[in-house]
Amino acid sequence: MLSVSDAAQRLLSENVGRLILVRLRGNKVLRGVLRSFDQHLNIVLEDAEEILENGSRRLGVVVIRGENVILMSPV
Amino acid sequence: MLSVSDAAQRLLSENVGRLILVRLRGNKVLRGVLRSFDQHLNIVLEDAEEILENGSRRLGVVVIRGENVILMSPV
Amino acid sequence: MLSVSDAAQRLLSENVGRLILVRLRGNKVLRGVLRSFDQHLNIVLEDAEEILENGSRRLGVVVIRGENVILMSPV
Amino acid sequence: MLSVSDAAQRLLSENVGRLILVRLRGNKVLRGVLRSFDQHLNIVLEDAEEILENGSRRLGVVVIRGENVILMSPV
Amino acid sequence: MLSVSDAAQRLLSENVGRLILVRLRGNKVLRGVLRSFDQHLNIVLEDAEEILENGSRRLGVVVIRGENVILMSPV
Amino acid sequence: MLSVSDAAQRLLSENVGRLILVRLRGNKVLRGVLRSFDQHLNIVLEDAEEILENGSRRLGVVVIRGENVILMSPV
Amino acid sequence: MLSVSDAAQRLLSENVGRLILVRLRGNKVLRGVLRSFDQHLNIVLEDAEEILENGSRRLGVVVIRGENVILMSPV
Repeated sequence: MLSVSDAAQRLLSENVGRLILVRLRGNKVLRGVLRSFDQHLNIVLEDAEEILENGSRRLGVVVIRGENVILMSPV
Repeated sequence: MLSVSDAAQRLLSENVGRLILVRLRGNKVLRGVLRSFDQHLNIVLEDAEEILENGSRRLGVVVIRGENVILMSPV
Repeated sequence: MLSVSDAAQRLLSENVGRLILVRLRGNKVLRGVLRSFDQHLNIVLEDAEEILENGSRRLGVVVIRGENVILMSPV
Repeated sequence: MLSVSDAAQRLLSENVGRLILVRLRGNKVLRGVLRSFDQHLNIVLEDAEEILENGSRRLGVVVIRGENVILMSPV
Repeated sequence: MLSVSDAAQRLLSENVGRLILVRLRGNKVLRGVLRSFDQHLNIVLEDAEEILENGSRRLGVVVIRGENVILMSPV
Repeated sequence: MLSVSDAAQRLLSENVGRLILVRLRGNKVLRGVLRSFDQHLNIVLEDAEEILENGSRRLGVVVIRGENVILMSPV
Repeated sequence: MLSVSDAAQRLLSENVGRLILVRLRGNKVLRGVLRSFDQHLNIVLEDAEEILENGSRRLGVVVIRGENVILMSPV
């Protein structure tokens, strides 16, 4: 069995430069190109946008504090 | 008596590659194939879906931050 | 005076294999056979069920993250 | 001046075997005989009951996770 | 400039044996004679009472977990 | 680039003895003369008052637990 | 792959002296010129203002506790 560090980091590493979805506490959902991350799940997204009920809002580059991340998945 | 580390890890290890249910804070429930986990209960699920009141939503591969996990159980 | 570690651990150790009630944050109440625990109150329950207002829901084996535990008591 | 550790621990030590009131987050109030405690305010109560608006509910022996404790006082 | 440890501790030390007001999370307000405290702001109050909208409720001696403290002030 | 410790501490140090505004979780806003602070943003204010929708309430000297601080700014 | 520390710190360093948007827990949004930050995302903003539904409120210089930060992005 892989440790999650290995599996999660490999999954995330494979998705650097690709579009991912990030769900945050407080029902916020962001989508953007993963530029980088660390072991606390702090994330830098490029071309990020917040997904709203009706449409989306452009955010550009964002630094997300990992503590607010619930889950991430490649799109 | 087994320590929970032993028992929990054995339980989870036995379920790598199998379907599990993960309940998160904020009343989110996910179901997917356990790919990996660590001692903080960070989890990688494959073929994950969010269970909704009426149906479900496909998520694919997800990295779940352990801090949001309330409980996990094999399906 | 016993330290709580001693008293709590002895209480829990005495109840491995027996039915206990676990109250979680968010008003969740589970009942199940205690298989194991650790010093963070991470818990593995067997034959677990969630107690609902009207009846209960079967969960089978569950791993509970200790951080969500408010209290535990033998049934 | 006594450190709180000293004062709090002496206060609690003096009340082992006596009835105390424990207020938890989420507006839960328990009353029971203090069997033991530790420096994190993890507590074991015997003959515990939850105080409800109209009456009380018997819980027997309970292990309370200190993180949920707001305050404790001898009855 | 004094470090807050110095200033806060001096302020609290000066008020041991005097009446202080303690505001807790969840809109609870207590008033009592400060018996002791530590660097986590764990507090022991004597002759404590909870201040209610209309009047107050006697609590006697209480141990308050510092994590719930928002602020304290001499009365 | 200055580290925030430097910049934040210099900013706060420059404001010891001056009026500052402190916003706390739970929509509490305090105003008072900064007497001292530490690296956890624990704060001692003198002549503090709570800003209410309609007016203010005098608090005198207060010790604020840094964990509840959202932001601070010189008035 | 860059570590997030590198990527996030480079992103933030590049934006010292420029306008950024900071989203805080509790639906607070601030905009101001980034003066400094540290690895906990503690931030000092100059010429800060809080963005309100209808307009904005001037705050001047603010120290923001990193724990409350959800995300930051250059404007």
